[in-house]
Amino acid sequence: MEPEAPYVSAPTQISGRTRLYAVLGDPVEQVRAPSLLNPLFARLGIDAVLIPVHVEPDGFAEVFRGLTRMKNLDGILVTIPHKAAALRLADEVSPAAAAAGAVNALRREPDGRWRGENFDGVGFVRGLTEAGHRPEGKRIVLMGAGGAGSAIAAALLAAGSAQLTLCDPDTARLGALVARLDEHWPGRARGEAAPAFELADIVVNATPLGMRADDPQPLPLRALAPLCVVADVIMKPRDTALLKAATALGHPILHGAHMLDHQIDLYRGFFRLDDPTGP
Amino acid sequence: MEPEAPYVSAPTQISGRTRLYAVLGDPVEQVRAPSLLNPLFARLGIDAVLIPVHVEPDGFAEVFRGLTRMKNLDGILVTIPHKAAALRLADEVSPAAAAAGAVNALRREPDGRWRGENFDGVGFVRGLTEAGHRPEGKRIVLMGAGGAGSAIAAALLAAGSAQLTLCDPDTARLGALVARLDEHWPGRARGEAAPAFELADIVVNATPLGMRADDPQPLPLRALAPLCVVADVIMKPRDTALLKAATALGHPILHGAHMLDHQIDLYRGFFRLDDPTGP
Repeated sequence: MEPEAPYVSAPTQISGRTRLYAVLGDPVEQVRAPSLLNPLFARLGIDAVLIPVHVEPDGFAEVFRGLTRMKNLDGILVTIPHKAAALRLADEVSPAAAAAGAVNALRREPDGRWRGENFDGVGFVRGLTEAGHRPEGKRIVLMGAGGAGSAIAAALLAAGSAQLTLCDPDTARLGALVARLDEHWPGRARGEAAPAFELADIVVNATPLGMRADDPQPLPLRALAPLCVVADVIMKPRDTALLKAATALGHPILHGAHMLDHQIDLYRGFFRLDDPTGP
Repeated sequence: MEPEAPYVSAPTQISGRTRLYAVLGDPVEQVRAPSLLNPLFARLGIDAVLIPVHVEPDGFAEVFRGLTRMKNLDGILVTIPHKAAALRLADEVSPAAAAAGAVNALRREPDGRWRGENFDGVGFVRGLTEAGHRPEGKRIVLMGAGGAGSAIAAALLAAGSAQLTLCDPDTARLGALVARLDEHWPGRARGEAAPAFELADIVVNATPLGMRADDPQPLPLRALAPLCVVADVIMKPRDTALLKAATALGHPILHGAHMLDHQIDLYRGFFRLDDPTGP
């Protein structure tokens, strides 16, 4: 067994031959991608480095275009608040990204075009599945039609969930998401102000409620059926008030961290890091 | 005494808080700046990383603008063939850079403007001086009016050389350089096709001749006075045919590597790396 610790604090030594990846956000201080992907590059023996890029919304298009003109840059990750802008700037996007209305990863294709993908939702669905809660055929209530909620909605429908009910106080945003989802998966998603929580097999919090200690609960736990799974996308704190209360009531729960843990494997495939001829 | 070796292979661990520097070139594989500055950041305890950026001339302006919109990027280094383009894109430049017609380092000023500097020449003059050959009051013949030659010419005049004779087969380029130098140091520089080598105290090769084994010599060594110093800016090979032949004839010589060795100290000052409140 090789010890893994040295890799964590020692990314590949950077030279003129090092390939580049960037993660764009505003703010960017909190991103975990560099501490996850740089050790992976080192472990795989890939001479590449992922750097954080702090860019405000009004500079995003210029920074994005600049990055795509760098011939030694192979991939871009995008986080809040740039995911919708990245969708507009990509040369092509996957169906999941189009349905979500957001892109969080882009790679340079062999023909030079930039392809956008969205792994927020797929990462969540993987986490759900590996925890033993397959979304196939399930009735799901999803709170929040923002970036994370949109991506998760698309991924749940792609994974075969039978019926998806979406809630968001922003009815324009909610209606637009349901319309996009309907184009790809007709009749399986609907928006509702007061969903039938008691019929749900799985409920998902994709709102920011729970990040602060004094936030109200994002959904009425007492209305759920006893075996309903309660999932949260919030990563900090790990144990949100929602998950604590759900555990106390005996519900199976899923932590937000699973979404990102599984994304690393997805990035690895998307950026072809295991392909000896690439990236 | 702390051992320095570990720092060389372990740049600071990159997180979302890491500050960025970039070195731009075409090609970029050969640049030494990352292997010189990243260990310096680590030694100084600065959470920053210098990355190589490969950009072709037609993409330079877009990449430059993108970099300047990154709020966590503090400095840009520029190498061949972008030094003249960097001069045009800088918000302000030093007199040395203006006279050289080229910029090889830019920093973000507190007011957000990008200031361009040129250290190619100053680094050369430092190396010359520290080797015991002060250019003050000397008669110097400089071969080559390209990027390196222009910067060295400006730095030699700024350092007080009495008379500078420049040679370049491209007479338009030569005339433009002499005109720029004349604005700052009237009457001290002139262009000549056949300079009086026998009167020179120092001769400098700033042409590419000597990089390849079958290149002709860039200047007639046999015409020099016995104590004339022979300097070369070529770094690979370290011992060019010119320097070998000059040594055989008993001339004092100066290797090209000195130019870059001294630039590291200059970058350190320019980027305010020793200032606890910056960069």
